[in-house]
Amino acid sequence: MNSRPLGVFDSGIGGLTVVRELLRQLPDERLLYFGDTARLPYGTKSGETVTRFTLEAAEFLCEHNIKALVVACNTASAYALPALAESLPIPVIGVIESGAAAALEATKNGKLGVIGTSATVSSRAYDRAVERLARRENIEIMSKACPLFVPLAEEGWTHHEVTRLVAREYLTPVRERGVDTLVLGCTHYPILADVIQEAVGPSVRLVDAGHGTARAMRERLDAEGLRAPAAAQPPEHRIFLSDLLPAFRTTSERFLGQELPPVEVVHWKDERWVRV
Amino acid sequence: MNSRPLGVFDSGIGGLTVVRELLRQLPDERLLYFGDTARLPYGTKSGETVTRFTLEAAEFLCEHNIKALVVACNTASAYALPALAESLPIPVIGVIESGAAAALEATKNGKLGVIGTSATVSSRAYDRAVERLARRENIEIMSKACPLFVPLAEEGWTHHEVTRLVAREYLTPVRERGVDTLVLGCTHYPILADVIQEAVGPSVRLVDAGHGTARAMRERLDAEGLRAPAAAQPPEHRIFLSDLLPAFRTTSERFLGQELPPVEVVHWKDERWVRV
Repeated sequence: MNSRPLGVFDSGIGGLTVVRELLRQLPDERLLYFGDTARLPYGTKSGETVTRFTLEAAEFLCEHNIKALVVACNTASAYALPALAESLPIPVIGVIESGAAAALEATKNGKLGVIGTSATVSSRAYDRAVERLARRENIEIMSKACPLFVPLAEEGWTHHEVTRLVAREYLTPVRERGVDTLVLGCTHYPILADVIQEAVGPSVRLVDAGHGTARAMRERLDAEGLRAPAAAQPPEHRIFLSDLLPAFRTTSERFLGQELPPVEVVHWKDERWVRV
Repeated sequence: MNSRPLGVFDSGIGGLTVVRELLRQLPDERLLYFGDTARLPYGTKSGETVTRFTLEAAEFLCEHNIKALVVACNTASAYALPALAESLPIPVIGVIESGAAAALEATKNGKLGVIGTSATVSSRAYDRAVERLARRENIEIMSKACPLFVPLAEEGWTHHEVTRLVAREYLTPVRERGVDTLVLGCTHYPILADVIQEAVGPSVRLVDAGHGTARAMRERLDAEGLRAPAAAQPPEHRIFLSDLLPAFRTTSERFLGQELPPVEVVHWKDERWVRV
């Protein structure tokens, strides 16, 4: 048993869709969430910058004595996981490995689609994870960067004609390749699930990595004897953000599906994140 | 006469559309451009964060001994100009004052439209600049945030059906108000000018602040005796960016309209920007 908190990192607030699953599957764990809202998005930046930013965030969460880290951002998982595993003395779970595992469980015809940010898709991290995990031959992967999906989700155009048109433009080639499973390789995409489903057709199974990531963390905590003791009171979670926008609360609660804990703002100063 | 360089700041590379005008109107000036590509976009962030980032960039350019500063980013101009004017001992020109002045010169019916990022529009900086500069009564301003225009421009969908639909959605209310002049209040928007023009109709005059900003800087340098002496060789410009993406050169040259000078990458470390 271990009552230290569990760290969750994302470039912004999309990672709250993963938090939602963590709260459901690990209700006794106290969570510390860090969203780098001052420097988001990561998905349009270089792998080197994404890795540096992610290491800085992990260091901050480790200063708060976390016992394990969930990297809820696909782009950060794609680039920074090896560097994190090397520099941190605690278990680190990313969304990509879990997403790839869930997709391999779901597929029947062995044809997988992966959609994500430009940075995630260029990294080929899903391809490598699938190759590593596949227990069968002849797995085919079709990846497609969908850079307009994040701004469309943030604009709130979840069922807008424009979003339908963009989804058709991005996903028609994926559909034509005959994939039976599509990984939503970005934490923003689940809120566009209806339109994405429509564009790929009803027979394609959509895989959101949140569920698998929470399960992987639960198994890892169990294996290492790190689960929190059953709490008499609901645990007190904390949310740290590097920038705070007025509209943040509404959007966040849409991602999280419930009321938010208090938010604390931090700035990057003298080589560390400090509260302001 | 003063041969120190002229600083240009933008959150990314959109400010190169302003550089293009500076090169044309001030061909003897040596330019130092800083684009904060690691932390862009600014247009979705809080005024407080935008101001802090802008002051950090200005400090970096001042360390390189600039004689004057062009803030080519509308969002940074909207929030940080008073703080810059207070903390810097050199002339500072933003794009908003110049854009507002150009719009007032262009309008006949006194009905102005302004489009920009969410942050620029919320700041009401154009409204305040127009009120300050207007020499007539009955100026009406209709502002509209167009957050999808930047990602659409970066996706390169400058004449795509999706962009037409988005432009119609954002701009129909502006058109219906009967504006005769529309300020492109974001450095990315000029590359969507065709689609924007189509959405507001052929009789509306589009105002891009780049031209007016370069003119304002030229007048200011003249007034203060700060113009560079006529050069025998073309001046050697420098570009500093905080993140470097592979696709950067192509996009930048589209914005700049010519070949780029060499690019130097800087990181924010120990409270300052340092070369890596």
